[in-house]
Amino acid sequence: MKPKAVVLLSGGIDSSTTLYYALNKGYLCRVLVFNYSQRHVREINSAKKIASLAGVDYLVLKLNFPWRGSALLDKNAKIPLGKEDRKEIPSTYVPARNIIFLSYALSYAESISASEIFIGANAVDYSGYPDCRPQFIRAFQKMALVGTKAGVEGKGIKISAPLIKMKKSEIIKLGAKLGVPYEYTWSCYRGGKISCGRCDSCILRKKGFKEAGLEDPLWKK
Amino acid sequence: MKPKAVVLLSGGIDSSTTLYYALNKGYLCRVLVFNYSQRHVREINSAKKIASLAGVDYLVLKLNFPWRGSALLDKNAKIPLGKEDRKEIPSTYVPARNIIFLSYALSYAESISASEIFIGANAVDYSGYPDCRPQFIRAFQKMALVGTKAGVEGKGIKISAPLIKMKKSEIIKLGAKLGVPYEYTWSCYRGGKISCGRCDSCILRKKGFKEAGLEDPLWKK
Repeated sequence: MKPKAVVLLSGGIDSSTTLYYALNKGYLCRVLVFNYSQRHVREINSAKKIASLAGVDYLVLKLNFPWRGSALLDKNAKIPLGKEDRKEIPSTYVPARNIIFLSYALSYAESISASEIFIGANAVDYSGYPDCRPQFIRAFQKMALVGTKAGVEGKGIKISAPLIKMKKSEIIKLGAKLGVPYEYTWSCYRGGKISCGRCDSCILRKKGFKEAGLEDPLWKK
Repeated sequence: MKPKAVVLLSGGIDSSTTLYYALNKGYLCRVLVFNYSQRHVREINSAKKIASLAGVDYLVLKLNFPWRGSALLDKNAKIPLGKEDRKEIPSTYVPARNIIFLSYALSYAESISASEIFIGANAVDYSGYPDCRPQFIRAFQKMALVGTKAGVEGKGIKISAPLIKMKKSEIIKLGAKLGVPYEYTWSCYRGGKISCGRCDSCILRKKGFKEAGLEDPLWKK
């Protein structure tokens, strides 16, 4: 029997590649998608499409964030445009977002007896988020081992972030090999009908495809 | 200016005592209550009442747990009755519940620049939950430091579980001194109009008041 895994899918390049990576490794995957009233709610449709194309069951979970604190949640805030070399944590940071996402994944994984959670966190071409770093994943792993029945009575649930040290171009090359349908992924932080091409996320995507020597199929659709 | 704190309040004895403890320590408290479709949804009304009596602002957050995995969520499952000396984790365990609760508290605390989170977790008279133990709180604390902006750019948010090593009777004695209105707290796991007096939680409460040498005002109402 295949080992079970919960895969967090946002509909972007990293999480979609992570899903195909986990499938390729032989896991029976269950996809978890979050609707947290993000401005770029369009990515949820991308996530559903990607999961369907991969032939994987998905669950869309509505999360409430009644407090502000991020340009990704606040429709009146400006999305920062293309500052690649900043050192500060950007305004699109959502307080404890990945912590909440992974906590739900842990609950779901434990309830279906999955042995692993896959998350597309990436610390190289990332936008400065503290909850995308290897030390965060390691700390969450330790906490998950002592805080769950699965960890206390069994081997616990493994948190895997296979892309965490890869460059965007390397992720895209890997995904292209695995057959990820990138034309259906969504990266833009702004809520428009087409990608803006100017926000942090769009710029990272462009750069990634360029460095990978591949054409972004998003623009061919 | 008073330091700000987020207090998790379920409406039971431990969390209510924790709220009064934090207020007594001089914190400006913001209360977070979770509605996760628990069978004993009545405790939410108790939590609101306690927060109001304490003169503290509260926020009730609806959480979705679409998966099963606990007798506290599944209306068809039996609530276990009074086995005090068990070693197994009981069926009322909700996968990763405190992990999710603390993650939300972390997000809320960060968004309002609170310096501390108070949780009424207790590891002595507890029902065998892994996420109520000191080692869990410590591991969550470490994870919270590396996974948030508050931890990376500042001193981070402290996770305090002041009752974690206290016996139920000691908690009740402390709460009585602090003026906690125990007549409005709710402990019973079952969804009835009055406490069943027979579930784990009711039995712990009875024993606690008895050992504290106090009368439970719940039964005087």
